[in-house]
Amino acid sequence: MRLRVRFAETDQLGVAHHSSYVIWLEAARIEWLRERGLSYRELEESGLSLVVSSLSVEYRQSAQFDDEIDIEVTLQEVRSRQLVIGYRLRRVADGLLLATATTTHIAADRMGKAVRIPADWLAAMLASC
Amino acid sequence: MRLRVRFAETDQLGVAHHSSYVIWLEAARIEWLRERGLSYRELEESGLSLVVSSLSVEYRQSAQFDDEIDIEVTLQEVRSRQLVIGYRLRRVADGLLLATATTTHIAADRMGKAVRIPADWLAAMLASC
Amino acid sequence: MRLRVRFAETDQLGVAHHSSYVIWLEAARIEWLRERGLSYRELEESGLSLVVSSLSVEYRQSAQFDDEIDIEVTLQEVRSRQLVIGYRLRRVADGLLLATATTTHIAADRMGKAVRIPADWLAAMLASC
Amino acid sequence: MRLRVRFAETDQLGVAHHSSYVIWLEAARIEWLRERGLSYRELEESGLSLVVSSLSVEYRQSAQFDDEIDIEVTLQEVRSRQLVIGYRLRRVADGLLLATATTTHIAADRMGKAVRIPADWLAAMLASC
Repeated sequence: MRLRVRFAETDQLGVAHHSSYVIWLEAARIEWLRERGLSYRELEESGLSLVVSSLSVEYRQSAQFDDEIDIEVTLQEVRSRQLVIGYRLRRVADGLLLATATTTHIAADRMGKAVRIPADWLAAMLASC
Repeated sequence: MRLRVRFAETDQLGVAHHSSYVIWLEAARIEWLRERGLSYRELEESGLSLVVSSLSVEYRQSAQFDDEIDIEVTLQEVRSRQLVIGYRLRRVADGLLLATATTTHIAADRMGKAVRIPADWLAAMLASC
Repeated sequence: MRLRVRFAETDQLGVAHHSSYVIWLEAARIEWLRERGLSYRELEESGLSLVVSSLSVEYRQSAQFDDEIDIEVTLQEVRSRQLVIGYRLRRVADGLLLATATTTHIAADRMGKAVRIPADWLAAMLASC
Repeated sequence: MRLRVRFAETDQLGVAHHSSYVIWLEAARIEWLRERGLSYRELEESGLSLVVSSLSVEYRQSAQFDDEIDIEVTLQEVRSRQLVIGYRLRRVADGLLLATATTTHIAADRMGKAVRIPADWLAAMLASC
């Protein structure tokens, strides 16, 4: 998944604000699902969400305004009710590794109750590992 | 309503990004309602929203990181289904006028259909003009 | 310029928050300049900015998570120190007009002083009207 | 440090988006420094920053629009060039623990080079542990 750093995502240090990466991870994750035939929008409409239960980011180099960034997404761990997803963010221009990250997700229904991840979702995610 | 410019709200020009003002207007509007005994949260829970139908901002001076800002809210126009709200943003330190703004709102139900603004809301807003 | 509504850009009404549009306008404006051979990043690095001095948005229909949106940018007015840019946002799926907007920009140097817009920038923008 | 969840910080699940917490941590950190007589704005103006080098958040319960949140900040580790700061976020209404988090910071000059944290900053932070 490729994106370009928006001006609004910079801060007064002249680099992308560290909270912007968290939003990019989400966009990359949803694109990664789409490539596997999985629509996060439809999942949401069916009443399920993949809630973020934990997040960690290691920042290595700063991304700057207008930089193009590639985000590589990998499925790190799958259980019936939990996913761990890994990310590597690289600057397109020179391949420099900007950051690595991990997010953990729990499937939840509309009341916030933990539920099983649908079997067809697990299959589609695992098939493409 | 008073707030402090967050670091994340700055951009690489070293000033608050112009989109941040739009978020401050909303926070000021909700605080202004609260001071009139009106909970926007309860309005939302009852299935009504005051949807923003138009927005205009005149930027005069830049706000900077850590500046404290006062936002003066005034009701400019009230109809049965529409409100116009005005804003003046000043820097607390010296009273400098940073921006003026106007938002127009339409009351809508959960399906997005325009509805009348509840009479007790209109009364509370008008009583305190 | 085409973008996709991010999950983080929605609010609890289930639609894109009205402040998100302001960030999209900026991204569309910078892309529009790039298509004319103008790098906003280089302009910034040379010490010039196109500061937003006013902004207005008319919201007509809600954008939703994962919608693809096309933003048409037009130069509405050019003076030596000021630009007015217009925008029309449409949902790609059905061409529905979601919003129209206008931004006014003043060229400013690093001290925030108004300066003339570089002649080659004006020429490139006008050539492609 | 106490703040109120802004409407713009919610997402279509009806809760505060997980990226909002990252912005709150920063605001709490800067307020915590201010209480110790340390102005992050002045540090920045002197050419130093406390760059975020890593971030982790454990999300336990959702924060909702208009919730008031208390953020407790603690200094977890101090070295000459690195700080580790811990956070606990609680809902004011009932004291419910919403999230815990850790950020690691490196002092850097304007060129992004790692430098020592000023001795008076270390002293002020340690004095109040």
